[in-house]
Amino acid sequence: MPHFIRVNAGTGEIKTHPVPEAYVGLGGRGLTSSIISAEVHPRAHPLGAENKLVIAPGTLTGTPAASAGRLSVGAKSPLTGGLKESSPGGAIAVKLARLGASAVIFEDIPADGALRYLHININGASLRPADDFRGLGCNDTVVRLTVKYGPKAGYLCIGQPGELKCAGASIAATDMDNLPTRHAGRGGLGAVMGSKGIKAIVVDDKGAGAIDLVDRAAFLKYNKMWAKAVMDDPATGQGMPAFGSSVAVTIMNKEGALPTRNFRSGEFELARDVSGKELRAVIKARGARLTEPCSPGCVVRCHRGYIGPRGENWGKAPEYETLWAFGANLGIGNLDAVCQMNHLCNDYGVDTIDMGVSLAMAIEAGLLEFGDHKGALKLLKEVGKGSYLGRILASGAANCAKILGVSRVPEVKGQAMVAYDPRVLKGMGVTEALSTQGADHGAGYMTGTNLGWTPNWRSVPKLQVEGQVDAARELHQFQTAMDGTGLCQFLHTPLLNTAAAMVGVLGMINTMYRRKWSQADFTAHGADILKKEREFNLAAGISKAQDRLPLFFSREPVPPLDTVFDIPDEELDRFYNW
Amino acid sequence: MPHFIRVNAGTGEIKTHPVPEAYVGLGGRGLTSSIISAEVHPRAHPLGAENKLVIAPGTLTGTPAASAGRLSVGAKSPLTGGLKESSPGGAIAVKLARLGASAVIFEDIPADGALRYLHININGASLRPADDFRGLGCNDTVVRLTVKYGPKAGYLCIGQPGELKCAGASIAATDMDNLPTRHAGRGGLGAVMGSKGIKAIVVDDKGAGAIDLVDRAAFLKYNKMWAKAVMDDPATGQGMPAFGSSVAVTIMNKEGALPTRNFRSGEFELARDVSGKELRAVIKARGARLTEPCSPGCVVRCHRGYIGPRGENWGKAPEYETLWAFGANLGIGNLDAVCQMNHLCNDYGVDTIDMGVSLAMAIEAGLLEFGDHKGALKLLKEVGKGSYLGRILASGAANCAKILGVSRVPEVKGQAMVAYDPRVLKGMGVTEALSTQGADHGAGYMTGTNLGWTPNWRSVPKLQVEGQVDAARELHQFQTAMDGTGLCQFLHTPLLNTAAAMVGVLGMINTMYRRKWSQADFTAHGADILKKEREFNLAAGISKAQDRLPLFFSREPVPPLDTVFDIPDEELDRFYNW
Repeated sequence: MPHFIRVNAGTGEIKTHPVPEAYVGLGGRGLTSSIISAEVHPRAHPLGAENKLVIAPGTLTGTPAASAGRLSVGAKSPLTGGLKESSPGGAIAVKLARLGASAVIFEDIPADGALRYLHININGASLRPADDFRGLGCNDTVVRLTVKYGPKAGYLCIGQPGELKCAGASIAATDMDNLPTRHAGRGGLGAVMGSKGIKAIVVDDKGAGAIDLVDRAAFLKYNKMWAKAVMDDPATGQGMPAFGSSVAVTIMNKEGALPTRNFRSGEFELARDVSGKELRAVIKARGARLTEPCSPGCVVRCHRGYIGPRGENWGKAPEYETLWAFGANLGIGNLDAVCQMNHLCNDYGVDTIDMGVSLAMAIEAGLLEFGDHKGALKLLKEVGKGSYLGRILASGAANCAKILGVSRVPEVKGQAMVAYDPRVLKGMGVTEALSTQGADHGAGYMTGTNLGWTPNWRSVPKLQVEGQVDAARELHQFQTAMDGTGLCQFLHTPLLNTAAAMVGVLGMINTMYRRKWSQADFTAHGADILKKEREFNLAAGISKAQDRLPLFFSREPVPPLDTVFDIPDEELDRFYNW
Repeated sequence: MPHFIRVNAGTGEIKTHPVPEAYVGLGGRGLTSSIISAEVHPRAHPLGAENKLVIAPGTLTGTPAASAGRLSVGAKSPLTGGLKESSPGGAIAVKLARLGASAVIFEDIPADGALRYLHININGASLRPADDFRGLGCNDTVVRLTVKYGPKAGYLCIGQPGELKCAGASIAATDMDNLPTRHAGRGGLGAVMGSKGIKAIVVDDKGAGAIDLVDRAAFLKYNKMWAKAVMDDPATGQGMPAFGSSVAVTIMNKEGALPTRNFRSGEFELARDVSGKELRAVIKARGARLTEPCSPGCVVRCHRGYIGPRGENWGKAPEYETLWAFGANLGIGNLDAVCQMNHLCNDYGVDTIDMGVSLAMAIEAGLLEFGDHKGALKLLKEVGKGSYLGRILASGAANCAKILGVSRVPEVKGQAMVAYDPRVLKGMGVTEALSTQGADHGAGYMTGTNLGWTPNWRSVPKLQVEGQVDAARELHQFQTAMDGTGLCQFLHTPLLNTAAAMVGVLGMINTMYRRKWSQADFTAHGADILKKEREFNLAAGISKAQDRLPLFFSREPVPPLDTVFDIPDEELDRFYNW
């Protein structure tokens, strides 16, 4: 029976109740954003008793649906001050779904400052003391819990910055190898978890039964259509399994859109050294994992491990955005250093994107030079120590810039921008300016639309002004709906390009939830969720005047294309007209 | 001839030009806010090349008008992100006015990171190297400049936090004893000065002629009426000269409105130890200055010195708000410690209010305990060292709270609240919620209106809901107009209470500027300035949803009166209806 688990982190009381009528049929971001929107005061302090932290699997998660294992984590964000959703991969969502836990909601904060972890299994949920976990990184936390609960349970946890309530802290989720490498990275959700004194969540689905698909045969037929379309797509069927998202380094560099040295150029002369090709070669040479699923049932399998030069297990190879954050962004062409920084962030529990941009802010402030990978590693280690400098760096790039007195700050609504120069990929500029989430490439991945990867849906050339806002709006709505299902966002291109993929996904949803959704209904559902998030943000004081990129993108042409961001403000203001 | 001095801090070029038509007859805040509003992009980064720093004497400054020596300093604020105005006392404004410098406007930022000071005298203005001043506090800076330019020049300068561009940095102005004790404290204007590489401004008015009063006899007649009204008023004629603003400690404590231990109570059991009476006794016993003007021509003379227990010259005795910030706010009843902290802040160049609240945030984060004056002093000294902890503390309480992960944060629009519990003095709550300046008691000092100090104008009892917004609106407009004249805000009570005072002030303005202003015209002028500030803020992304106090003031009754802040949001939203 689908239920909610409500954990009062103040009193320690746990209540389990059936999914309320209003939330039946919602999942993932659709559920987390709806709950936050309904239950949290828009002006609640993100780290106070009135904020809530909600985790929820998607509507298709735990079923046989291919690549639908994403978890949604939601709260009012200490980074943006708005409604935040972040969706890690990993093995947790599937386990929660199988246990019937449609949402776990953490309320209140502990008066005694105690640290606890939540244990969930088929018999229910309980809070257990974790004071002796204090100060542990994510790796040690998982190792210690695994001794007790075994490698087949799934684990969510925070590290030092989460405990210290730093606004860049992430929540780690264990991958299929039981390593805490999949993160709810953006928006400081780890700080919200830390404010509630929750060090970890153990999800043990042993003994859980299968999810009711209503018409199993029909569901499986639709899933087959969906999985085939994913595998037939050259990107998700071949590119991603081979290179993961790191394939984008070379592409963006060629397009002149790889932000280099804090957005001073769109071309990085050392791009090759931190490219997907180079990464794949090193992974293979050192015998790390390649082409693995990050969550059960993923057919794309773009998760890969990384082994350091002295045989160190550095967990997971970085995604494109992380390769950028510690690579081109900092002028660093040393792949091992980039992968070690990624590994340290995953251990500390801190967003790699905001952390990379924080390090760029440290460079702007004169703490080190571009290209100094040893200096960058040294600074990053301050985060693990919990020093004041570490806390500044782990508080998100925008906060870091404030403390260090930096004025060249690539951020929107307090969240760092990322990996796609908006002066070149203007559609991504629209996405980063307008997203309810602060700067967020994933909110509406216009890169594909700008580079012709979704020809059967829409194409808007990267440098064109016209059409970006309309396409970005629809893409935001569509991808928000995807975030409700648990489907990985990497799959939005086959889903938009291939009719059979859409038939498959809608067929699974309609079968299981007894609906008759068309693609338009699906998109409209996403629009509803976005609207709730937008209204929450407006009430929280984030006005439409904040739907803008920093001025320097409009002032300073980026080489080699020498273009500025020139989508007019009035055009941006059309985004929320629906 | 009244003129503007435009200093390009990037190129080093200085241009002097007559006051443009649009700005003729404006002064003080009327001028600084108008210039920022017209010339600075609302989304300019406060520490970037597009922000400007403007200083301007009031319209009556430099004339014989009593107590009209306030300087206005304006910029886009790195603390609030909005248009900021702060008006220190001291000897600078009068000198600028006598030199005919209606405004000094700093533009751009230096690419080379050089530090300079601006020298202004009768022959013009020039930038001079100040690289060897790097790292000096305000006292040493003034001492070094005085060696060169003598004690009769006036000095403005920044200390370490200003150089480091911390968002709580102030700009110090020298008092009549040539000590840098009068500060443009609020909103981080020192960081803007630091971003422009300006360490100090020397204003030497030797040889300057008298200001043209148009009809000197009439002007002097009106000034006599004004000065007499000020001296006849019991507060400005007797209370202030004897006790300065510190008289308010006992009053607020009796009213249950003295915020104690980060707003947990309205009553401080050690209030007596840090009261105006005790302060006066110590000042007298140790032979420090008492009842002096802070700027030439002030008839109230509430400026007073302070000598430490071992004979140290701690410059200036603290104002009420500072006594609160380091006293009741931190649970500290040690007067010497409070005065030393005030002195250190004046030397470093950092706002005492935001700094006091930063220390409260450090207490909330567990760095020290309430009442620990030694610990507080030790922490504060980190600011002078420029350590990372010091930079966190000097970045304003709201930023400090973000980095330290604190959720009980008394701030509005990023600026710390102050010294008057809004649950008790509800009119002050309206002022702090609605001011264009972020939380700012001085923007519309409703304390007087709430406690019956302005009976001939309006009285709205402190706990009453009705009438606070209407009174606060008019008071904001009136006080904003005062900020245009250079008149000290301490004099708004006699000005509102006594018909002769208003006749005197309007008479001086009308004589000198050939106007026929009534009180309504005067107030309407203030409303115009406020409107410009408000529009700038809205365009900068500060929405009306930010015109609110933190939620805990609505949730948590404050003892001993056990009241909450209960002015409805809809009522607050009426404030800007004009």
